[in-house]
This record gives sequence, C-alpha cells and structure tokens, in this order.
Amino acid sequence: MTEKKIKPAFKLWFQIDEDYVFGEGAYELLEQIREKKSISAAAKAAHMSYRYAWALIKEIEEHLGESIVSTQKGGRQGGRTEITEAGLSLLTNYKRLKELMTQVCRIA
Amino acid sequence: MTEKKIKPAFKLWFQIDEDYVFGEGAYELLEQIREKKSISAAAKAAHMSYRYAWALIKEIEEHLGESIVSTQKGGRQGGRTEITEAGLSLLTNYKRLKELMTQVCRIA
Repeated sequence: MTEKKIKPAFKLWFQIDEDYVFGEGAYELLEQIREKKSISAAAKAAHMSYRYAWALIKEIEEHLGESIVSTQKGGRQGGRTEITEAGLSLLTNYKRLKELMTQVCRIA
Repeated sequence: MTEKKIKPAFKLWFQIDEDYVFGEGAYELLEQIREKKSISAAAKAAHMSYRYAWALIKEIEEHLGESIVSTQKGGRQGGRTEITEAGLSLLTNYKRLKELMTQVCRIA
C-alpha cells in the first residue's frame, strides 16, 4: 500500500455451497473448548452465553452432518467436553488459513 | 479440508484505523471506470445507481484525503473520467491481495 495508514482487513469463514458454516466466533469457541474441556467455561471465555454457544455448535454439526464436540457425562468433574476429530479439523484448518491470510496482508 | 464440500470464503477490505474505506463494491466500480472512462457507464455495469456510485467515490476520497477519479468536463465525448494514481493504487493492491487470498484458499 502506498497510502499512509490504510490497511487490509479480512473476514474468513467456511461454507457448504452458499451456507455459512464456521467463522471467527465458532473458531474462538472451539479453541476455548479444546483448552478448557467445558462448554460453559469456553462460552464464558468467548463472551457468549451458554445457550448461544450450544446453538452455535448444534448448527455447525447439522451443517456438517457430524459432531464437533463430545461430552462425557458425570465423573468427578461432572462432565468433560472434548473436540472430535471433525471439530479439530475445522479448528486447525481455520487457524492455519487465517494465519496465512494475515501473513499475505502483512507482506502485500 | 478433510470435510466434503466445505470451502473457505473470505471478504477483503481496506480500512484506516477501524474505518472501512474500500471493499469489493468500490473495487468493481473502479475497475469499470478504468475500462469505460465514465462513472455512469461504470455504475451501470457494477449494478449501482449513479448516485450511489458517486457517493461511494466521494466517501473513499474523504477517507483518503485525495481524489481517486478525475473527470475532464466537456470535449467531444462530453466528459471523460480517469482513475488517478491513488485510485489505481487502491485498485491494483486490492486485486492483487484478493488474488493471493483466493490462491491461499485453494491450496490450503
């Protein structure tokens, strides 16, 4: 860019056909679930209500036709949520692509 | 992506601080102006009203503090609009960055 102060910015998402499936909010939520193993703790960290976070997960799963998180009921800690392989694939692909695009913006 | 059918998509824009300055619509308009040398013909090709196209140009120029198009009044063709150097810089930078990002999406 030759202009002062002007900078590129972007928004990245995944879609199936033209349907929005997975974007920044879901990425942040999944990242937090992976770390905290709890949807409620992850929702809080991602500044979402538990209800919103749950609806977001369910919507993504409906689009994909498979689960992105898996919760073990009970146990000493009263339930523990893990990211499934499909969830991890979304998470890592989104992260990698976002990093690549950020780099492209920096060097362009 | 391991999932079938799921594809990355993105939106690219230029901003100054947090203010949106230039995006896909303006890019298409400028591209058409460069080709057609006429704001009204360009607006039509970009599916914008002349009024909207003009307002879009003025808003970008206000953000940048310089002109992105230059119109010669009169003459045999009754006015001819050219892209300024600043306009061309926006146009080519946007195009290049969009192409790079599209490639990143394809290979990622």
